[in-house]
Amino acid sequence: MEFSHETRDKTLRTLQQKQWELLIIGGGVTGAGLALHAAARGIDVALVEMQDFAAGASSRSSKLVHGGLRYLKQFDVKLVADVARERNVIGRNAPHIAQPDYMLMPVYDEEGASFDTFSAEVALHLYDYLAEVDETWAHYMVEHDRVLEEEPALNSEQLKAGGFYLDYTNDDARLTIETIKKAHEMGAAIVNYVKAEAFHYSEDGQINGISGQNTLNGESFEIRADVVVNATGPWSDETRKQGKRETEKKMFPTKGVHFVVDHDKLPVKRTIYTDTGQQDNRMFFIIPRGDKTYFGTTDTPFEGTYEEPSITREDVDYLLKAVNHRFPSANLKLKDIESSWAGLRPLIQDEDNSDPSGISRGHEVFTEEDGLITIAGGKLTDYRRMAEDTFEVIDQAFETYGKTFKEVDTKIIPLSGGDVPDPSAFADFVSEQAKQGIKIGLSEADAAFLADWYGSNVTDLFNLSEEAKTYDLPLKEALQLAYSLKYEMVLAPADFFNRRTGMLFFNIRQIEKLKQPVLDILSERLGWDSQTRDNWEGELNARMQEAALSDLKKETSALK
Amino acid sequence: MEFSHETRDKTLRTLQQKQWELLIIGGGVTGAGLALHAAARGIDVALVEMQDFAAGASSRSSKLVHGGLRYLKQFDVKLVADVARERNVIGRNAPHIAQPDYMLMPVYDEEGASFDTFSAEVALHLYDYLAEVDETWAHYMVEHDRVLEEEPALNSEQLKAGGFYLDYTNDDARLTIETIKKAHEMGAAIVNYVKAEAFHYSEDGQINGISGQNTLNGESFEIRADVVVNATGPWSDETRKQGKRETEKKMFPTKGVHFVVDHDKLPVKRTIYTDTGQQDNRMFFIIPRGDKTYFGTTDTPFEGTYEEPSITREDVDYLLKAVNHRFPSANLKLKDIESSWAGLRPLIQDEDNSDPSGISRGHEVFTEEDGLITIAGGKLTDYRRMAEDTFEVIDQAFETYGKTFKEVDTKIIPLSGGDVPDPSAFADFVSEQAKQGIKIGLSEADAAFLADWYGSNVTDLFNLSEEAKTYDLPLKEALQLAYSLKYEMVLAPADFFNRRTGMLFFNIRQIEKLKQPVLDILSERLGWDSQTRDNWEGELNARMQEAALSDLKKETSALK
Repeated sequence: MEFSHETRDKTLRTLQQKQWELLIIGGGVTGAGLALHAAARGIDVALVEMQDFAAGASSRSSKLVHGGLRYLKQFDVKLVADVARERNVIGRNAPHIAQPDYMLMPVYDEEGASFDTFSAEVALHLYDYLAEVDETWAHYMVEHDRVLEEEPALNSEQLKAGGFYLDYTNDDARLTIETIKKAHEMGAAIVNYVKAEAFHYSEDGQINGISGQNTLNGESFEIRADVVVNATGPWSDETRKQGKRETEKKMFPTKGVHFVVDHDKLPVKRTIYTDTGQQDNRMFFIIPRGDKTYFGTTDTPFEGTYEEPSITREDVDYLLKAVNHRFPSANLKLKDIESSWAGLRPLIQDEDNSDPSGISRGHEVFTEEDGLITIAGGKLTDYRRMAEDTFEVIDQAFETYGKTFKEVDTKIIPLSGGDVPDPSAFADFVSEQAKQGIKIGLSEADAAFLADWYGSNVTDLFNLSEEAKTYDLPLKEALQLAYSLKYEMVLAPADFFNRRTGMLFFNIRQIEKLKQPVLDILSERLGWDSQTRDNWEGELNARMQEAALSDLKKETSALK
Repeated sequence: MEFSHETRDKTLRTLQQKQWELLIIGGGVTGAGLALHAAARGIDVALVEMQDFAAGASSRSSKLVHGGLRYLKQFDVKLVADVARERNVIGRNAPHIAQPDYMLMPVYDEEGASFDTFSAEVALHLYDYLAEVDETWAHYMVEHDRVLEEEPALNSEQLKAGGFYLDYTNDDARLTIETIKKAHEMGAAIVNYVKAEAFHYSEDGQINGISGQNTLNGESFEIRADVVVNATGPWSDETRKQGKRETEKKMFPTKGVHFVVDHDKLPVKRTIYTDTGQQDNRMFFIIPRGDKTYFGTTDTPFEGTYEEPSITREDVDYLLKAVNHRFPSANLKLKDIESSWAGLRPLIQDEDNSDPSGISRGHEVFTEEDGLITIAGGKLTDYRRMAEDTFEVIDQAFETYGKTFKEVDTKIIPLSGGDVPDPSAFADFVSEQAKQGIKIGLSEADAAFLADWYGSNVTDLFNLSEEAKTYDLPLKEALQLAYSLKYEMVLAPADFFNRRTGMLFFNIRQIEKLKQPVLDILSERLGWDSQTRDNWEGELNARMQEAALSDLKKETSALK
């Protein structure tokens, strides 16, 4: 179903004309989940996102659907069970996004190790038990030699054993956009690049709408709604402060940093989850993806600007030290980092917990006196359940309007692209679909890549081949651009290169070749004047330099 | 095998005559385990205890053999697995002491609850998994109504569910004495009431013996040994300070307090393990035993005298508040407390853990520069494994003397009284043995009680009926006294009334009737003059007043 700059223009008009039942502020994965849940229940729902969909925390995670093995150390079993069980739900509803795979946790006999061989096996047993993993994917432990056979690049010193266990690889931004598209398909009115500037109130002081600004042209307009939900992740406190009253600080975001290198430089066969080895009680992931490997962690306390949390020299030194400790032959240096991202995990301070380390990994829904409902905290994987919990509060608000809506079970609603006959045989589906791609001139690899990336939507994409072939781009990327313009509301270069295709992170060097033709096509399709084109080109260049850590690399060269 | 004041006199002479291979200071459960392990390996071993066996921490616990369910909340899975598996070992080697039984953990929906229904079920699953519990004793959860059916006295408000799970009831002092007796039988030289006054050193500064003082007559003498082990529990630091060097504080004992009331006043069918409900992250036990119920907890930080840690008004108020919160109809008051005890858990500060709450429940073995080996920390249930771990260090010390000893598996050595054909059918054994007791004139109940209490030693006890019938005591208690004088090295009234029979705690009112004849018999058998008899009577009265909380009760009456 079309979801483009043209449908956006129409939606912008509708937004101002109606009294909405529900308005969601924030188009990350949390807002997306809420919008889908609302639309499925037949609620008149609108969603505004100030940047692009998933541009905040939801495109900056470790890109895994995981249950949080390490939270078992705090016996946070409910969270782990809930989240681990959600992995299956996402895998079923979006097999093109989340794929089950064995991950490896090596066990080292070193100071400060999170797990020893015994506790690792217990933790993996408990993880499987909580996630209701069946025998097909049951964990297993192997000894030192077997770990090195499987992952020869791992440090062999003090290596004792390894645990193989099920988790899911994922793409956070794709998960968000496919949820948004499904919500749109089910009737939600959704726009990106509209910022909530101010709240409006009824005579009795209850929030009943917002002033939204279309940040692409500066125009402001009013959106009226019975209930307003704040799903702005790390910005939750800032959004709440737009209300009338003093608000207590709830958010304690932590920064996560990830670096991308060539797979040959860090040749791992599967996701590895391990201590940093720095006796700091932190673990990190090393994840292969296509021709690249990325690695990173998510738990540095953070103070600073939320829009573009930056990567510091300390971040680089810390993560390179950790990765080189685990993979001594990799000997990675700053210059090897091709791309990177930093993101904020929107953690909340747990009210029930006086322990200073009691930052909750769970989520919380709270209602201000002015009626604003905030959903904060939580984990990417858990976004569907977060929507369920938020609706328990939203439904109470609806009751004051005498409104009730049918119940739905969102567990059984496939996301956009997830309409495949047998999600557990997704590889077969990909092979089958790829044949269509080959017919329109794609290589087998490219056709399979696209079928894997877009799932059941790949037919719509292949059907755009006539349009795509008019672009001065390789066919694969031309199809992606044509599809994302028509079906994924691309309005800016980074929407396409980052949130729709992941190229900014996983193929940054190719962007140099693609960017002029892409800018040309966007200019034409979106009606940019030359000033606008220059601005967007500057913006893209800034994002690329940032991702490539250009400033840090220059400083380092200057020092030599 | 005889183990009496007479064998003690002989042992006292031998102690001074020999060069011992191993000397153990401390006759609590830890020292007892070491002595048994050493004797089984054919090591020339001596053990001295400054008070009575088990008079310190080892007679003041909750009297359970349990794995430490709550440590799962810190994911301390190795400790829980080790300890929980030891339950079976003790149950097999001493079925007359440790009996498997279902315990109940009720789940309340209240602030600060340690477990909710979900995490309780997970914890019990994990507990069974770690302990390798088979289906016979697998845990199960029941709902609110079923909990109240089983335990109607429990508070029904906010009660959600209950988990039934396997643990073992036990008697800590009996466990110690039966281990001591077995070690003696296997050749260890063991005496109570001998205090290590000072250490002796070789020319190169290595500890090679002690000055011991027989505290019953003040005589001092030297004991020479190749290796000296400090197993003095809460006194570990004090014992170490007798050495030449400054020592770092290791022990951070916590106080445990238990109160005994009539079973009718707190009618529980089985052991209940529950939060205090005071939002203090503590749990406590409520345990039925014969006609009594006792309840208590073990985790108040403690500073004070180690010999007789006292019970304060705050302890009383705290525990009564907790128990009355859980059992509102009990409405227990100070006057209902018939007896009590306070003890110290010899916890050690974990070196590896910078967390201030990182007091370890595990044990640690360390060697001073002067060669003194200290085993500290640990849990009662784990005492056999503690001995194993200590011998890894002791064996290294023996190597410097060119000595090696055969290995043994103490897992398969029954304790004294544990020679029963099928430990898992102990009830049948008791019925069978009781028949012999009935023949000598005991009631069926008393005969069964004695068979249960003394296990396979009950034959020796029944064989003392001729002697016992000369005592001005009921036959049951007469037999116990005759047996404990001949086979359990009783030297003082409290040895008998507390560590050998548990009467001081569980039948204190009966002592009033028994104490004069018992004092008469002890006087005659142990050759006391009238001054000594008066002293011991005074001592017993002091212990009884202390246990009965007489001072606190007087204060309370005075306040009215």
